[in-house]
Formats: sequence, structure tokens, C-alpha cells
Amino acid sequence: MEKKIYDESKIKNSLNHIKHKIIVLSGKGGVGKSTVSANLSLLLSQQGYEVGLLDGDMHGPSIPKILGVEDKRPEATELGITPVFALPKLKVMSMAFLLQDRDSPVIWRGPLKMSAIKQFIGDVSWGNLDYLIVDLPPGTGDATLNVAQLIPDCDGAVIVTTPQDVALVSVRKSINFVKKMNIPVIGIIENMSGFKCPHCGKTIDIFKTGGGKKASSDFNIPFLGNVPIDPEVVITGDSGEPFVIKNAKSHTAKAFADIAKNIEKIVNKK
Amino acid sequence: MEKKIYDESKIKNSLNHIKHKIIVLSGKGGVGKSTVSANLSLLLSQQGYEVGLLDGDMHGPSIPKILGVEDKRPEATELGITPVFALPKLKVMSMAFLLQDRDSPVIWRGPLKMSAIKQFIGDVSWGNLDYLIVDLPPGTGDATLNVAQLIPDCDGAVIVTTPQDVALVSVRKSINFVKKMNIPVIGIIENMSGFKCPHCGKTIDIFKTGGGKKASSDFNIPFLGNVPIDPEVVITGDSGEPFVIKNAKSHTAKAFADIAKNIEKIVNKK
Repeated sequence: MEKKIYDESKIKNSLNHIKHKIIVLSGKGGVGKSTVSANLSLLLSQQGYEVGLLDGDMHGPSIPKILGVEDKRPEATELGITPVFALPKLKVMSMAFLLQDRDSPVIWRGPLKMSAIKQFIGDVSWGNLDYLIVDLPPGTGDATLNVAQLIPDCDGAVIVTTPQDVALVSVRKSINFVKKMNIPVIGIIENMSGFKCPHCGKTIDIFKTGGGKKASSDFNIPFLGNVPIDPEVVITGDSGEPFVIKNAKSHTAKAFADIAKNIEKIVNKK
Repeated sequence: MEKKIYDESKIKNSLNHIKHKIIVLSGKGGVGKSTVSANLSLLLSQQGYEVGLLDGDMHGPSIPKILGVEDKRPEATELGITPVFALPKLKVMSMAFLLQDRDSPVIWRGPLKMSAIKQFIGDVSWGNLDYLIVDLPPGTGDATLNVAQLIPDCDGAVIVTTPQDVALVSVRKSINFVKKMNIPVIGIIENMSGFKCPHCGKTIDIFKTGGGKKASSDFNIPFLGNVPIDPEVVITGDSGEPFVIKNAKSHTAKAFADIAKNIEKIVNKK
């Protein structure tokens, strides 16, 4: 029991000097949740905010690779673990930094995992932040619940989806999940929304389009915007170059920027 | 302890009359694992085999929607639960059939989940099957481990990936995962591999290409084939029409057929 109180007060202290805490989730994996989290964090930090990005995916942490910091390591100081700097105003923490072997799966069972997550979140020394973006594990299972429960006084949740129906079933799950946790929904982002052929310029809705907007009106939650498919997102995600900086003038980067502004507005209104 | 023996003998009995058991996994979600499982099952059943498809994703079961049987329900008989028929030779079992409210997330904790999974697998009366395809939960975490451990004498694992590097990190995890479980790797499938613009006919590697083949040679495991991106896969997946039957002559359906043949060959050689 004493151990529990210790853990929670430690987490509270670690997250104490953060103005806004936002969780990013998706009802299923592979919808681009980490790409969205990384690019929104980049944009907020570019606007002059102090931003922290917590990669909460214990099994498939991909944020360090997307931001090109996978070879960096956090430093352990007396105050706790100092996150890795991806940009002067963007700090990152990820389980990937703590894995010795990148190719090994982290297969850990319930109780062990829970204590690892608590330590992972509680021991990080974020310092003063305007925004902490928490990239949750994909889905609405145990892993997501475990991490989401440890972020106290969360401003709200951003839900990422792809446009098609099969993926939208999982959006409804995400909405119910955050409602059950009494976390407000900031809004929904439709990723991989339409594709413009670079050869002929015509648009093809590879994964359909409009599903995110429909879900937002069905559930009466804000729609934050569409992000079009862009092969450059994949290329920069692999090479570790920040997409919204490298391709700042692209249609997709502008879509990300609009979404970041929408989130800023909603969070600061409260 | 007695309970445990009972559970496992029940599962063994339930899976006793199955010639080949194949698990399908991916290191991360959203790579099309369920789409691949569904279409390979359809193709095998079309070739005259008796096929069962177990949707092992307890949190985001999508197989019933992909196969257009989401309004059907399995019947409980004295012999156990009779799976739903998607085609005369294709039986399907999914947690989606047992969820009252499709929009609700299944948030269940470790021990409760384990007993639900055991019951779910042990109580199904599959009858005589040539193939049981098990669509595992995405990723290499607890959920995947829980289901994979309950499939005894598995012929092997099919690993599904998308072409880009970030996804391939998770392939390596999948390979290590099945190796740790002493399950042979049947091979690797590269999904969403290149896209042909329907307007100008040119090919664009939206998610890059060739990563699956590279991983197969790096790890010395068979490469089962590429599946090109096809908006029809998404459309039929949402409408519940079997893609490989409705679009049998498409390039993507032919790719699926080649992969099914490769799997058949490898499994029957043993």
C-alpha cells in the first residue's frame, strides 16, 4: 500500500510542472498515431512552446525512429531521468531508449509491466512544459488503460483514425474508452485521408474519405482535420527527418499545422 | 491446478481434428493482418479445403465485418459452440459475435481475459478441418502471447508487414517472438506493397517497397509474396464482400492466390 502511494506521488511530482497534458490514442494500430503525435509535437515546439513527447507504447515504440533520435540515450541524474532532446524545445522519452536489443519483443506480464510503466513515467524529469503529448499504445486494451490511468489531470484525448468503416468501429471504441475514464475528447483526426497521384495529379481515396468527419458528427465531438496520404511522411518517418519541417510547404504539412492550431484553441479555451 | 488441466484438454479436444494450424501475426496493427487472414482463408476454402478462421483479436475483432457475417451468431449445442459459416467450407469464430454492443471496448484485465480466451478457444466445435487460420491480436504483447500459447502443435506462423522500415522493426520482433515460442516461421507477406494509379496507370510506392523481401533474406525465412495496395480491398472489407472472389481477376487477388499456394506448398512439405 505504501509502495502505491509512493509511486503515484512520484508520478504526480514528475508531471507537476506541465500546463497541458494531451493523450493521443487510436482504436487500432497502424493508423499513424505515432506519426501524428510526433508531427503535432514538432509543430507546437516550433511555435515556441516547451513540449514533451512521451512514447507510451511499451511493445512497439517508434517515436525515436520517427524523430531520428534512436541512437540517443536519456541521462540519469539525481532529479530523475532526463529525456532526450529532439529539438531545443522538444523533449522525448520512450521505452525504445531503454531496450538493449531493438529487435526483441518486450513480452512482459501484467504486474511486472505495470511497475515498469510506473517507473518509466514517474522517474522522468520533464521540467517545465507547456504541452506533454502522450502517444498511447494502440487499441483500447490493458496496455492503453495502464498508461492512460497514470496521467493525472489530463486535458483531453485526441483520437486518430483512418477513413474506412472497419477502422471506424475502433474509433467508437476509443470514444467510449475515454468517456469511461472521464477524460474529455479534444477531437478526432482523420489520417491517410485521400491521395493525390504525383504523376497525374488526380486524387484517389485509397482508404475512402470522410469517415472521421462522420464519426465526429455522430458522436458530437470536434473534428480536428484530415491528413492526406503523402509518401514523404513514410520516407521521413524512416529516415528520422521531421516531416513537417522538411516538407513544410506540402499540403500534408499544412493539414498538420491546421490541426495543431485547432488543438491549441480547444485546449486553451478551457 | 485441476482447472488448468481441464481447460487445456478441452482446447486440445476442440482442435484435435484439424490437419494444419497456422497463426497469422504482425509486429504492429494496421498492416492488414485480418484482411490477409480473411482472403487466404477464402482462397483455401475455394480450393476445396475445409477451413476454419479464428479471429483471435479480443479487443478489435474485424473478421466478421470483412467477411460480411457480423449479423450472424454462433449456435451453442451440446458439443460446444458451432462457428458461423461465411462460405460452405469456411467457418468463422470471433469475439465480435459475443459482444452485445459493437461500439464498446473490451477492457478486461489479465486473469479474467485469460479465462475468457480459454473458453473462447476451448468451447468451439470446429469439426474436421484441413486448415485453421488463427488471426492473432496485433503486436507482440500479452494479448498475442495469450492466444498463441493456446494453439497446440501449430504448423507455423505467417508474418504480415508493410514495406517501410518503421514497420519492419516490428517484423523483427515478430520473428523473435515466434522463435521464442518454438513455432516455425512459414514466411513473410509484404502487404500494401506499391500502388498503381487507376487514372494514369503509373506505380507509386506509397509505403515504399521491398522491405518484406529484405527482412526475409536478412532472417533467412521464406518470402511468401507482395500484395499491392488496392482501394477495392478497403471497399469490399467495409461492405463485407469477399475481395478475392468479387475481384478475382485483379492483380491483388492474383497476388493473394500465389501466396496461398506458397503457404500450401510449405505446410504440406513438412
